[in-house]
Formats: sequence, structure tokens, C-alpha cells
Amino acid sequence: MQERNKILLLAAENLLKKDELQKVIALLDKLHPADAAEIVTNMPDDEQKRIFESWDIPSAAEAFQEMDEDEQADIVDLLNTPLVSDILEEMSPDDVADLLGELSKDDANRILASMNREEAAEALKLMQHKEDTAGGIMTPEFVALRKDLTAQESIELLREKAPAAETIYYVFIVNKDNQLVGVISLRDLIISKANQRVEEIMNPNVIYVDVDTDQEEVANIMSRYDLLAMPVVDHEYHLLGIITIDDVVDVIEEEASEDIYRLGGVTREEKLDSPAVESIKNRLPWMTFNLLTAFFAASVVLAFQGTIGKLVVLSAFMPIVAGMGGNMGTQTLTVTTRGIALGQLEFKEGMRVIARQVGIGMVIGATTGILAGLVAYFARGNPYLGLVLFMAMTINMAIAGLAGAGIPIILRILRQDPALGSGVIVTTFTDVFGFLTFLGLATLMIKLLI
Amino acid sequence: MQERNKILLLAAENLLKKDELQKVIALLDKLHPADAAEIVTNMPDDEQKRIFESWDIPSAAEAFQEMDEDEQADIVDLLNTPLVSDILEEMSPDDVADLLGELSKDDANRILASMNREEAAEALKLMQHKEDTAGGIMTPEFVALRKDLTAQESIELLREKAPAAETIYYVFIVNKDNQLVGVISLRDLIISKANQRVEEIMNPNVIYVDVDTDQEEVANIMSRYDLLAMPVVDHEYHLLGIITIDDVVDVIEEEASEDIYRLGGVTREEKLDSPAVESIKNRLPWMTFNLLTAFFAASVVLAFQGTIGKLVVLSAFMPIVAGMGGNMGTQTLTVTTRGIALGQLEFKEGMRVIARQVGIGMVIGATTGILAGLVAYFARGNPYLGLVLFMAMTINMAIAGLAGAGIPIILRILRQDPALGSGVIVTTFTDVFGFLTFLGLATLMIKLLI
Repeated sequence: MQERNKILLLAAENLLKKDELQKVIALLDKLHPADAAEIVTNMPDDEQKRIFESWDIPSAAEAFQEMDEDEQADIVDLLNTPLVSDILEEMSPDDVADLLGELSKDDANRILASMNREEAAEALKLMQHKEDTAGGIMTPEFVALRKDLTAQESIELLREKAPAAETIYYVFIVNKDNQLVGVISLRDLIISKANQRVEEIMNPNVIYVDVDTDQEEVANIMSRYDLLAMPVVDHEYHLLGIITIDDVVDVIEEEASEDIYRLGGVTREEKLDSPAVESIKNRLPWMTFNLLTAFFAASVVLAFQGTIGKLVVLSAFMPIVAGMGGNMGTQTLTVTTRGIALGQLEFKEGMRVIARQVGIGMVIGATTGILAGLVAYFARGNPYLGLVLFMAMTINMAIAGLAGAGIPIILRILRQDPALGSGVIVTTFTDVFGFLTFLGLATLMIKLLI
Repeated sequence: MQERNKILLLAAENLLKKDELQKVIALLDKLHPADAAEIVTNMPDDEQKRIFESWDIPSAAEAFQEMDEDEQADIVDLLNTPLVSDILEEMSPDDVADLLGELSKDDANRILASMNREEAAEALKLMQHKEDTAGGIMTPEFVALRKDLTAQESIELLREKAPAAETIYYVFIVNKDNQLVGVISLRDLIISKANQRVEEIMNPNVIYVDVDTDQEEVANIMSRYDLLAMPVVDHEYHLLGIITIDDVVDVIEEEASEDIYRLGGVTREEKLDSPAVESIKNRLPWMTFNLLTAFFAASVVLAFQGTIGKLVVLSAFMPIVAGMGGNMGTQTLTVTTRGIALGQLEFKEGMRVIARQVGIGMVIGATTGILAGLVAYFARGNPYLGLVLFMAMTINMAIAGLAGAGIPIILRILRQDPALGSGVIVTTFTDVFGFLTFLGLATLMIKLLI
């Protein structure tokens, strides 16, 4: 939380202790809704309840709209259904749909039943779309104009429609069947002659997406073409909604966070100020899974106890092979996952990318393997120990390239999140194969080593 | 590259072989400049040169502006100075400044000398600001109005200034000393009465940043308040420029990529289609450093050769301690680094965050340590082996929490990028301490173990 909001939170809590509820609400109303939201969500539940029950609905809705969906869901639990539906009626239908999607079916239905029928229908329609697609992030609150209007008429219409629209800086032009035929910016409308027809000034090469497009691709397109808003159409080019840049900013941050967390083996988002108990609950199942993979790698070492017993120094060199493979695998995984997220990869190139990463791994493995091998040779006076280390590192780092590039690409082909194959999976590969190649080669060459 | 652009690239190259240069240029002119830029940058150098030398300057500039700075720098190398300065004069001064900052001092000065004096001066002024600050990403091409104008007069002025401004959707209001006093959106201007004075309709609580603000914080503020543009002021509130959302989208993607790469131990950005030789050159120094850290961890194992010689099975269990610590450390590092990037951390909370992560590590270490210890006990029939494993895992995972949270927080306090302390540094910690605690405890208790 920002320093200023912390101070305001303390002030608000002091006022609440003195039962000065109206003063708290007056204070919140002076703030940007994003700040009001942050302050309220950091209060105890009963204070949140008191505030929302006395707040005027439009201001409450503005602050509510700025909250994360899980924070919204917590507040919904505190309030009675009629108040919740009053607040939801003030919100953009896409935000309503997102929130209702977070709630239990029963809760969502109860709230929908108590809402104004039109708003409920709009939210329900949006809930049909998958959350992480263009349909899931679009808003139906856009301005569409018929192509035979003049610039002046269009500006008049915009004036009227502005209060209900998410943006009026792009206006979409449709034909009589509501099919998208062009786009015009408010900027262009303003500098056009009053009696020019929009058909003449509009850009017919409008960049749009299909309603089923993945939100990550939506973000890539809007960022690539620097768009403030992009239309969403169905399979017959009917205009269904628009996606605005502020939602795309959220998508980009969300997808980047998700990739970072998954690569780092954090399965569920965890904030720095989350309670420790929650962090432990989040991480423990995954760490228990990690333990299983660690035992799997350990069982490989166990299988070579005889060899290690004959030459104990192998136990000092084997973590080098596994560790270098792990680092190589993590690097490759990072580059591949990020490349997929930024749209650099096409399916048919998958094999080429994997082959290239295997090659890179082999070259880096051989180069660092020579260094490591020489150190081992000079340290122990046995050239074959160096040779085994060199060979194992070369092979294991090629495998690191294979696993680091192959796992995310296969996940992508299976239409799963490529970042799911987080570092732990890749390092299990490199641990297992690292121990296997190094101790296996040592076993084969044991007579030359001792 | 997108499929469509690949086909267009092939078509363009065929036309060039037949010397149909004008047809290629006509083709490029029909595309969105971002697509034209992508196609041209994927051509051989001599073809790029031919195209730029025959392209009309405004179209060439539009495509040029869409390229990365390193792609731009490559093209600058191909063209003669007068042509380069003609193109640069058509571009936004902030983009010119960014490009010139990429070039050698000599090249930049030569180009500046050949540019129109006014444009050169503007670019030079912007080059004073650090690249990753508000000053480094702002544009001076904004519309500022005096507060005594009417809505109608403002719209007229906007009409005039629109072609040269980066955005006209936010208009900034200044006093006679050019100090920022308010903001008004074009949307609000349009729905106001014609004779209302902007002073009455403007929002005086304008959200702005200081010119030295870090670009990551700029992005956090604009995303938090859903702004399309934000004003940048100097220390006396003089309006210097604005930052537009499309630049912030680039910043968010760039910062997220940087964090992802650094956490994954990739020191320099690497694209999936980068040539293998380049990837190897990028990664080799870092992997050689990794090798050093791996030898450091190996030397710890080497120090305990006597103990392992007495009880070889220790060599199978020791990677479990190191590996679990490594995973825990990576998780903690990920959560901490992302938390810092998203502005969740304040300095004075640093110690509390570290303490919490140490606690989390200890609890998860003890829990998974009990499991691992039981397995070891039942597998080997010796309860003390289980006890050593349990104790080593608890200690090492507490250390993982310490290193995973402490390293990025210390880097942050030293004003370095927290993500610099990438996974490799943290896993070196957890490897060294994992081997040290496990083998150290085993050495102390060796009589009970064999």
C-alpha cells in the first residue's frame, strides 16, 4: 500500500472508532476510486460492511469496480443481496460478468435474480464467453455508428452516448446488419468537415479479433498496433463488443505475473504481504510434489551406490553435472516460454526451435565440460575422470535444451499454458539424466577411474 | 513473424529480384506501418537500403518508428546521413532521442548536425533524461491549454493542434507560468456547454509524475488509475511532456521480460529465432560463472569425502536437501521479486518480509523434512538418518527463505535491479548450505548412523 493510503487508512479507522461513519465516507469520496478501494479492502470485515451499507451506490460501485475479483467476492459475502445487485447495476457488464464468474453458482443466480432484468441479461450473455478470451474481457458499452451519418451528426450522437460508453475515442462503423465495416477515431471526426460522411473518413482496414481469441493474443495485437480500443466480432463479423487498452494492460500484467510465478514454481499468486499461513498452504502441496521428484532423482544415485563406494569423489562431481544441466534447462525454459508468450513461435517451427536449443545445450555443455574436465583431471590426476565429466555434461546439457524447449512447446501444442512445465519439471529431468549419465559412464569406465 | 507477413515478405523479395522496387513500396504503403516495418527488417541489408532510398520520407518514417531501437540502428548504418536526418525529422522527438542514445556519440552528433535545428534541439533536450525514467519515455508533443479558454475555443484549438500531438484525448491545463493546474478529457470537453470555461470543467486533482520517476513506477501509476496519458513535470510543476499508454504497454512488457529473463538466468534478451551462435555467445559467460558456483558447492561435498566414504548412502540423500532448498529459494525469490516490481514492498517492511519467508521456509522444511525423514528411516532402518535429513531440510529451507527474500531486497536497497540476484545465486546458497548442513550433521552423528 502507498504511504499516503496507509495514513488515510489509520485516519479512517480512528474516525470509525468514534462512530464518525459519514466523515469516513466523505473522506473516501474525495479520493480516486482506486485509492478508496485500497483503503476499504484493508479494513476489518465489519468496518467494510458498515461503510458499504451507508455509502451512496454510485460511489460505492466506482470503488468496488477498482477491486480485484477476490476482494469483490469477499465484500459480496458481507452484504445483503439487494445492496449487491444495486452496486452491480452501476458497473460495466463485463466487470459484473467477471465477478459473478468468481462466485458460487447459487450466489451468482441469487444476485442475478435480484438485478434489473436488462443488466442481468447482459451480464449473463457475457458469462457465456471463456474468461481468458476476447469475449471474456470485452465490454458491450461501445459506440457504433451507421456509415451514412455525417461527421457533425456523429459528434452529436457521441455527445449523447458518451456517458454510457467505455470509450468514445474510437467509434466503430457498422452496416445495417450490424457488421463491422470500419473505424474512425474521435480525433479524425473532430478535424473533419462537418458535412463529410463517416463512410468517407473512416478507415475500412479495421483491426479486429474474433470473440474466441486468447487474451494473450489480444494483448499482443493491441500492443503491436498501439490501439486504444479494438472491436470484437463473431464468426459473421457482427460487432459484439470492444476491448479497451486499460483491460489489456491488466491482461499483460496478469499474464506476465502468471508466467513468472509458474516458472518460479509458485502455483498460486502470492503477495508479499499475504499471511504466512496462506503462503504455506499454497506452497506445501507443490513442495510435497517436489519431494517426490527429488526422491526419484535420489533413487538414481542409490542405484549407483556400488560405483560411488568404489570412488567416493564421484559424489562431489555429480552435483556439478546435475546443477549445470538445471541452469541450462531453466534458461532454455525461460527463453522458450517468454518467446511463446510474446508470439514469437509458430507451431511448425517447434521442431526447429527444439533442435536449435539441443545444439546450443550441447555446445555450451562441451565448452564448460572441457573446463570442468580439466579441473577434475588436474585435481585428481586421472584424465578419464575428466573425460567422464566432459561427456556427461555435454549429454546432460543437450537434454536440458531438449526438456527446456520441448516441454513448453508440447504443452502449447496440447493447448495448455507453456509455463505450467515450470522449472521443477525441467530440473527433475536434468537431475535424473545428470546423475544417470555421469554415474552410468563412471560405472562403465570404473576400471580406468580407480 | 505472422504467417501473412511471411508470405508478403516472400512476395516482396520476388518483386525485388525482378527489379520491381516501386511495386514493393506500393505494397508496403498499403500495410500498417508495424507490418511494413516487420517485413523490411527481415530483408537482407542491401534490399533494406534500396527500399529506404526510394521510399517517400513520411511513409519510411512511419515504418521506421515502429522498429526496435537496434533494428533502427542497423538501418541507420546503411543509409547516408542526410536521408537519416530527413526520416528522423518526421518522427516523434522522444523516439529520435531514444534512437540517438543507442548510436555512438559520433554518429549521433553527425546526424544531429544535419537535422533541422529545432528538431535537433528538442531531441537533445530529451536525451538529458535517463532512458528508464519518466523523462526518458515522455513526449513533448502534447496539447496544453490556458485555463481561461471556453470549451468551444478549446475544441477549435485542438482541431488545429491535433496533427502534431501524440494524443488529444487528454488536454492539460496550465497557468501563465506553464505550471500544471488541471486536466480535462476530450470526452468531457465534448459534452460540456460551448461557452463553459475549462477552469470550471477541468479536474484539478491531476495525477502527474516527476521527470525523474522510474519508468516501472510510471507504469504502476498509469495502470492503477487507468490513464491514457499522464503529465510529467519538473520540480517546480512546469509541464514538460506527457507519457502515453502505448509507451507504458511497452514498458510493462519490457520490464516483465527483463524480470523473467533475469530470474531464469538469461542475462541478455534472446529471441526464439535468434541465431544459435548468438545465443551461445550470450549464455556462455554466465554458464562459466555458474560452473564456478557449482565447483564451490562441489568443494563442500569434497570436504566430507571421509563421511561419505563411511556411509555411501548419504550421497543419495544429499541432493534431496540441496534440491528442495533450491526450489524453496526459487519460489521465494520469485514472489519477492514480483512483489517488488508490482510495488508491494516498502523499505521498512523489508525485515518483516524476510522474517516471514524464513518462517515459511522453516515450516515447509520441517513438514517435508518429516516425510523425507520417515522415508529414509524406513528405507534404511536407521532413525538417526531420518533425523539428520529432517534437521538439514528444516535448516536449509529456512536459509532458502533468507536468501530468496534477502538477496532481492538488499539489491533493491542498493538501488540495483532486484531480479539481478537470479536463481543461480540463490541456488548456490541452497546447494552449499544444503550439503553443509546435511553432511555436517551426518559427520557429527556418524557413530549413530553406521
